[in-house]
Amino acid sequence: MARVYNFSAGPSMLPEPVLERARDELLEFRDTGMSVMEMSHRGRDFVGIAEKAEADLRDLLAIPANYRVLFLPGGATAQFAAVPMNLLRGKTRACYLSTGLWSEKALAEAQRYATVTLAASGKADGFTRIPPRDEWHLDPEAAYFHYTANETINGVEFHTVPEVDGLPLVSDMSSNLLSRPLEVERFGLIYAGAQKNMGPAGIAVVIVRDDLVGQPLPSTPSLLDYRKQAEQGSMLNTPPTYNWYLLGLVLEWLKDEGGLAALEARNLRKANKLYAALDRSAFYSNPVEPSCRSRMNVPFRLAAPELEPLFLKEAKAAGLVNLEGHRSVGGLRASIYNAMPEAGVDALIAFLAEFERQHG
Amino acid sequence: MARVYNFSAGPSMLPEPVLERARDELLEFRDTGMSVMEMSHRGRDFVGIAEKAEADLRDLLAIPANYRVLFLPGGATAQFAAVPMNLLRGKTRACYLSTGLWSEKALAEAQRYATVTLAASGKADGFTRIPPRDEWHLDPEAAYFHYTANETINGVEFHTVPEVDGLPLVSDMSSNLLSRPLEVERFGLIYAGAQKNMGPAGIAVVIVRDDLVGQPLPSTPSLLDYRKQAEQGSMLNTPPTYNWYLLGLVLEWLKDEGGLAALEARNLRKANKLYAALDRSAFYSNPVEPSCRSRMNVPFRLAAPELEPLFLKEAKAAGLVNLEGHRSVGGLRASIYNAMPEAGVDALIAFLAEFERQHG
Repeated sequence: MARVYNFSAGPSMLPEPVLERARDELLEFRDTGMSVMEMSHRGRDFVGIAEKAEADLRDLLAIPANYRVLFLPGGATAQFAAVPMNLLRGKTRACYLSTGLWSEKALAEAQRYATVTLAASGKADGFTRIPPRDEWHLDPEAAYFHYTANETINGVEFHTVPEVDGLPLVSDMSSNLLSRPLEVERFGLIYAGAQKNMGPAGIAVVIVRDDLVGQPLPSTPSLLDYRKQAEQGSMLNTPPTYNWYLLGLVLEWLKDEGGLAALEARNLRKANKLYAALDRSAFYSNPVEPSCRSRMNVPFRLAAPELEPLFLKEAKAAGLVNLEGHRSVGGLRASIYNAMPEAGVDALIAFLAEFERQHG
Repeated sequence: MARVYNFSAGPSMLPEPVLERARDELLEFRDTGMSVMEMSHRGRDFVGIAEKAEADLRDLLAIPANYRVLFLPGGATAQFAAVPMNLLRGKTRACYLSTGLWSEKALAEAQRYATVTLAASGKADGFTRIPPRDEWHLDPEAAYFHYTANETINGVEFHTVPEVDGLPLVSDMSSNLLSRPLEVERFGLIYAGAQKNMGPAGIAVVIVRDDLVGQPLPSTPSLLDYRKQAEQGSMLNTPPTYNWYLLGLVLEWLKDEGGLAALEARNLRKANKLYAALDRSAFYSNPVEPSCRSRMNVPFRLAAPELEPLFLKEAKAAGLVNLEGHRSVGGLRASIYNAMPEAGVDALIAFLAEFERQHG
């Protein structure tokens, strides 16, 4: 069949030009006579790929020089442990904000290493809004403050960087990094698994301010030790080289597309028109407070939930796939990351109208 | 240029049919309308890929039913920590054998979690032989015994499974798993990064006997907790899906080639003829005791070491690349894993003779 519009929450769509280039270079990268996945990570060719990826990421996000950029194996879950292991620095407490399943997971893993103080939780509201800043209880003794910039399951997203009384600010940006410009200098640490906006699963990016690394807990596995990884250029061991290469291709594509300001404008258009289509009719609904709605993940329900299996079936037949909601909440969800073309969102909107016309 | 014979120690050559299939399926896997790297890891298509890889691995290695097979992010270095974190089970000591740089690395990481007793070390011999079994001091209080089945740098390899007085036997087989049949039932745990004989970097295989999992150290990151990963089918988090798929393609190729007995026969032929070529003349030398010589990694020197840069240059011109020795020992090295065709070894042998004729 032809390629479909894939609304999966992650792993998710990759830009077609990236896939085409990966295909064309699969057996022979340039004049090396080998695939990127066959290259020694310490050879000149792969080091060039790795360095270009870091330079492009620094360029796209305007990362200041006093921040280290790490490319680490695994995804955000490894960082759920690595963050407290590296950032407690002699303290015993860390402050977390809960806005959905992913913050809850980060918080639970941190509790293995730290006393976690909860700044606030959106749970009582069914995670349909981010608790307002004036309801947060910040812990002045915390080593850092952690929040999840975008929750993929309930579809809530921060649209500004929170102010946290001078605590080092740590954010899981797995699902919205590179979807818009970012004030990196306001953060102590940013981490993100690649498989939403950056590339295939199996590699994560960590951006960390220099002065925060170097005092890991004694039990920290070397692979999760940010200082050791920084000293070794993220090659303490053999890194996931092919994933790194693909991530680099996505970064090149982002630059070709005009950078993060251009991506943000496109992502805004996509999200705004999709929410407008859902709000237009009582046949569809999205429960999230408008100011917190995610530009990346749009959960929605039908007024007649018994039609949802039919919706999914007909959508799939129309080339619109993976519109199921997360198994923990059910319903429907459209994930519309960077690589989802505007035409894919337009096709979904047309399908929403047609499905309502037939079944509404 | 054309594809070369790549003697890199890892990441290393992959079978050309695997690369061709990956290329052909890159934009669309079967009738899914998407690339494998765009698939949800929980969707039917990817789960099928993952289950087939496990079934093929179990089949190739005849893995007994009471062993769990895990596919984990990262490589062997993550397991250097995970092994003691999971296998100490209330004990405080672990027994390690040192046969080269990789056993030394495993041992150093284990010291963060356990009191390590050294069974024996090949260091005094420059790691040119494996200390004979009757020189080992086994620690009866150790939670397990660890050895490195093949050392890529010095080129020593175990050709039989050691007997260790009933201690759970743990082995890093990153560089020789799947190169020959194996008595899995003699082991407590086997682990291996994929990037030598199994696939691209970024994924590791752990084969562990059921009764050894379930008592991790409290500080064990969830991602490294074997029991949690076993319960979740190695999907505690988003796994490195594309790496897993490529690993699966390599497993299918191994079966197509006739399985591990056929591979062993080919690998023996390759290694034997290469060592014979090196032993034939005083112009070349390999320092390893013949009974311990690795079938996977063949380090060698020239009698005139000043000619080694020229050797590398002329070899590269002849399409034989990455013959440098590891940076810690210098010299030359040919890694001839499963995916190195016999024709590649023949070409290297012909080059050895021609280089000696011109410069000997």
